[in-house]
Amino acid sequence: MSAIYDRVALIGLGLIAGSMAHALREKGLAREVVGYARSEETRKTAREIGLCDTVYDSAAEAVAKADLVVLAVPVGAMGAVAQDIAPHLAKGTTITDVGSVKQSVIEAVQPHLPEDVHFIPGHPLAGTEHSGPRAGFASLFENRWWLLTPLPDSPAAPVEKLVGLVTAMGAKCDRMEAAHHDLVLAVTSHAPHLIAYTMVGVADHLRRVTDEEVIQYSAAGFRDFTRIAASDPTMWRDVFLHNKEATLDILGRFTEELFTLQRAIRMGDGQQLHDYFTRTRSIRRGIIEAGQDTEAPDFGRGATSGKMP
Amino acid sequence: MSAIYDRVALIGLGLIAGSMAHALREKGLAREVVGYARSEETRKTAREIGLCDTVYDSAAEAVAKADLVVLAVPVGAMGAVAQDIAPHLAKGTTITDVGSVKQSVIEAVQPHLPEDVHFIPGHPLAGTEHSGPRAGFASLFENRWWLLTPLPDSPAAPVEKLVGLVTAMGAKCDRMEAAHHDLVLAVTSHAPHLIAYTMVGVADHLRRVTDEEVIQYSAAGFRDFTRIAASDPTMWRDVFLHNKEATLDILGRFTEELFTLQRAIRMGDGQQLHDYFTRTRSIRRGIIEAGQDTEAPDFGRGATSGKMP
Repeated sequence: MSAIYDRVALIGLGLIAGSMAHALREKGLAREVVGYARSEETRKTAREIGLCDTVYDSAAEAVAKADLVVLAVPVGAMGAVAQDIAPHLAKGTTITDVGSVKQSVIEAVQPHLPEDVHFIPGHPLAGTEHSGPRAGFASLFENRWWLLTPLPDSPAAPVEKLVGLVTAMGAKCDRMEAAHHDLVLAVTSHAPHLIAYTMVGVADHLRRVTDEEVIQYSAAGFRDFTRIAASDPTMWRDVFLHNKEATLDILGRFTEELFTLQRAIRMGDGQQLHDYFTRTRSIRRGIIEAGQDTEAPDFGRGATSGKMP
Repeated sequence: MSAIYDRVALIGLGLIAGSMAHALREKGLAREVVGYARSEETRKTAREIGLCDTVYDSAAEAVAKADLVVLAVPVGAMGAVAQDIAPHLAKGTTITDVGSVKQSVIEAVQPHLPEDVHFIPGHPLAGTEHSGPRAGFASLFENRWWLLTPLPDSPAAPVEKLVGLVTAMGAKCDRMEAAHHDLVLAVTSHAPHLIAYTMVGVADHLRRVTDEEVIQYSAAGFRDFTRIAASDPTMWRDVFLHNKEATLDILGRFTEELFTLQRAIRMGDGQQLHDYFTRTRSIRRGIIEAGQDTEAPDFGRGATSGKMP
C-alpha cells in the first residue's frame, strides 16, 4: 500500500498508539512514524523495541513537519498536550485523538489549536486490558469500529483522508455527533466497566475472609469481569470524570433495573426472571448477527483451558 | 483408561451432561453411558447425534442397573427427578448432581433417596452460554474445578471413586461444605451473572431509541456481558431462586460499593477512582497466577477479530 500521510506523530505511546505504530509501519501507510511520551521510561522502552522511526524528547519536536498528529493520551491530559503542541503545528496538519470520550476532549483541545489546522476527533473501539508501549500489536483494529466525530466546520478532504487511514489499518469507520457518541459509549462501554470494577472490588473484600477461594474458584462470569477490571486505571478514571453525565444516567437506569430483579428474587417471582433472561439472550444473538463476536461453542473458556499448563 | 463405572445414567441431556457423555466415552471411563431427558425433542436430538449408548423414554429405565446416576437438570427440578428415580435405584448406587447451588439441592433430593445409595452432591465450574444436547464437548471440564460437597455421613470409598471419575475427565477436584460453596459461588458466579443480565437489559431499552447502535458498536466490556447474559434462562432462574440469601447479600454489598464509586464520579474524586481501579487490577493478576486464565495480550478480542468474516 502506498503511504497516505508523510509523517505521523504519535503523542503518547501506550496500547493504542503502539498498535497504530505497528499497523502503520507494517502496511506502509506513512513515510515516517515518530512519537513522544511524557514518561522517560516509556520513551526508553519505545526506543529499545524500535516502536517508531524516531522517539523525541519533546512533543514539539515530534509534531514539527507532521501532516497527521494523533493525541493518544488519557482524556484528562488532552487539553495540556494540545496547548503544548499548538505553536509547533504546520499549516494544514490534521489533528486527531483516540479518546473514549468526545465532547470533553473537543472542549479541552479545540480552543488551543490554530485556525489553519484540521481537528477531527476519533475513537477506535478496540483495546485489551494491557497498557504501555509493549502492549500494542498491528491487528488490534482489524474489523473493529473506529468512530470519527468531525466538527460541524470540518472540511471534507482531510476527513476523507483520515477515513482512508483508519480503514487501511483494518477498521470499519463511521461518523456521528460527539454527544451521541458519548451516550452510546456510556451504555456499551463506560457503565459496564464501572460495574465490572465494582463487582471485582466486592469480591476483593470477601477474598480476605475466604483465603483466596474467590480467586481460586473464579468461574466464567467473574473471570470476564476481572479482565475488564484490569484495564488501565488512569485512562478509566479520566473516562468517568469526563463522561460524567451520561455515565451517571446509565448507572441510574442500571440500579433501577437491578432493584427490580433483586425484588423478583426476594419475592420468588421465577416468571419475571425467566422472561428477563430470555430477552437478554436474544440481544446476544443480535450481536453475533452483527458480526461483533463469534458463536464458537467454547469461545473464551475453551481457549483458556486449552492454553493452560 | 479402564472403565471406572459400569453404567452411568445421565438424567437431563444439556450442555453439562452432553459434555460428560463425550468425555466419558472418549476416555472409556464407563462401560455404558445411558441417558434420559424430559423433553421428547431433546431425546430425539440426542439419539440422532448418538450422544449416549441408549437414550431411554423414562428416567426409571435409565437409572436401572446404573452404578452412577448424574442429575443434570435445572436446580429447581432436582427434587422431582429424585422422587421419580428413587424406587428404581440399585443398592450401592452413587447419585451425584451438577447443580450450581448445593444446599437447596441437598434439601430437595436427600429425603427421597433410599438409605442404601450414596448421594454425593457436586458442581463442575464449567459452562458456556450455549445449552441443549448439541452444546456439549469432551474438553469442557479440562483444567476446570469440580467441587464436591459430600454429606457428613458419606463413606470414603464412593467419594474417592467419584473424585477419580471427575479428575479422569480432566477436572481439578476439591471438597467443601455446601453452605460455604453457595457463598463462594454467589460472589464468583451468581451475582456477576445477575449484574450482566441487568446491564444487557438496560442496553436493550436504549437500543430501541438508538436504532441498534448499541449492538453495532458494542465494545469489549459490553460484549463480555452479553455472552454471560446469553446463558440458559431456566438454569439461571433456578440458581437465583435457590441461592437467594447469599445472592441478595452479595448484591447488597455490590450496590453499596457502586454508590460509593458513583458518588466519586459525581464529586470528581479522581484519586478515589484511581486507587480503586488499581486495586481491582491486582486481583486480575492473582487470577492469572492461580492459573485460572491466560495473559495472552489479545485474549478474547484477538480470537474474535481473527475469526470474523
